[in-house]
Amino acid sequence: MKIAILLFDRFTALDAVGPYDVLSRLPGAEVVFVGESVGPVRNDAGSLRLVVDAELTEVLDPDIVLVPGGPGQTAHMSDGPVHQWLRLVDETSTWTTSVCTGSLILAAAGLLTGRRATSHWLALDNLTALGATAVSERVVHDGKYVTGAGVSAGIDMALTLAGIIAGDEVAQSIQLMAEYDPQPPYNAGSPATAPAELVTRFRESSRHPQPQPS
Amino acid sequence: MKIAILLFDRFTALDAVGPYDVLSRLPGAEVVFVGESVGPVRNDAGSLRLVVDAELTEVLDPDIVLVPGGPGQTAHMSDGPVHQWLRLVDETSTWTTSVCTGSLILAAAGLLTGRRATSHWLALDNLTALGATAVSERVVHDGKYVTGAGVSAGIDMALTLAGIIAGDEVAQSIQLMAEYDPQPPYNAGSPATAPAELVTRFRESSRHPQPQPS
Repeated sequence: MKIAILLFDRFTALDAVGPYDVLSRLPGAEVVFVGESVGPVRNDAGSLRLVVDAELTEVLDPDIVLVPGGPGQTAHMSDGPVHQWLRLVDETSTWTTSVCTGSLILAAAGLLTGRRATSHWLALDNLTALGATAVSERVVHDGKYVTGAGVSAGIDMALTLAGIIAGDEVAQSIQLMAEYDPQPPYNAGSPATAPAELVTRFRESSRHPQPQPS
Repeated sequence: MKIAILLFDRFTALDAVGPYDVLSRLPGAEVVFVGESVGPVRNDAGSLRLVVDAELTEVLDPDIVLVPGGPGQTAHMSDGPVHQWLRLVDETSTWTTSVCTGSLILAAAGLLTGRRATSHWLALDNLTALGATAVSERVVHDGKYVTGAGVSAGIDMALTLAGIIAGDEVAQSIQLMAEYDPQPPYNAGSPATAPAELVTRFRESSRHPQPQPS
């Protein structure tokens, strides 16, 4: 089972590594990190580098495609090599998946039109504008398209997918060995539970985005 | 605030990247990945490479030291450059932290003797044998030593530490932007809740470990 994880400049590390550390433990999993060029790619904060193993054109038949999000998503919203690759591999993939604003890339490539999907809570309107039916849920399936909400939701998305692919016992084993028994010290992980003033502040700054460092 | 994250061959990726993606968002955070040599380091599954930015001897004054775990921990249980570096940076660190079996490395370096600490649920006895007081909790503080349980517990450890360092509002903001509102599809993340036969199976195989690929 070949799993291709797309990396691009200014991706969010946990978007990719959370699901990686679940899906890579599936029996027979072979993960390859793909990108426009081979070598280290910097994350959004700039201080982490993950290595791309293969160029897009070298990986044409993954069973699972995973697209993380992050601020760098904005550079992949128009047609180009990434969209062409996504449309090509989607023709034969068993599962086409995303985490966070990775769903905006899938939608912009035309793969989520009319489909139920999710994204980071601040990006749900953008997902609607790209032709998907945006759903405010942690993990959303529509046929072979499985999308996760913001950043950390990739872990739940991947465990859900692991259960579908390999059965409950395998997924539970992966969960147990990752000791995924979350106990966040605050209850601020969603706009429904976080302090209202924080939610308002982030909504306002997302409507009036600051210039991003390039 | 300088944060040094130790990488070594066959580390577990989420052990390092979960806390990274929390702590790197603290105001003024500067993260550096350190290791015995600069360049890409492979994780436990072998298919992920994170880049070490600096050799141990180049980073002598981090405010926060973080040691992840993973199968490669077993190569760092006797005295050597890693232990010497840990003891040196611990002299001036504000926080010395670990995730998963990273605490076994800290303990073997002599830094947790007589201190309350935690580790992966399968490694608590090893932690006791190394002179620490092993505690089966998700996040354990003892003075400046903050240890997290297995793999995914690093996210909770880092959010707890973020709150102590920068206050509740900053920690809650990081949690909200990471949409850390976990909804695991199974309740199998701890030996207390996972199916008993899975727990037994993993306990038995950890007592009779298979030879590891090198």
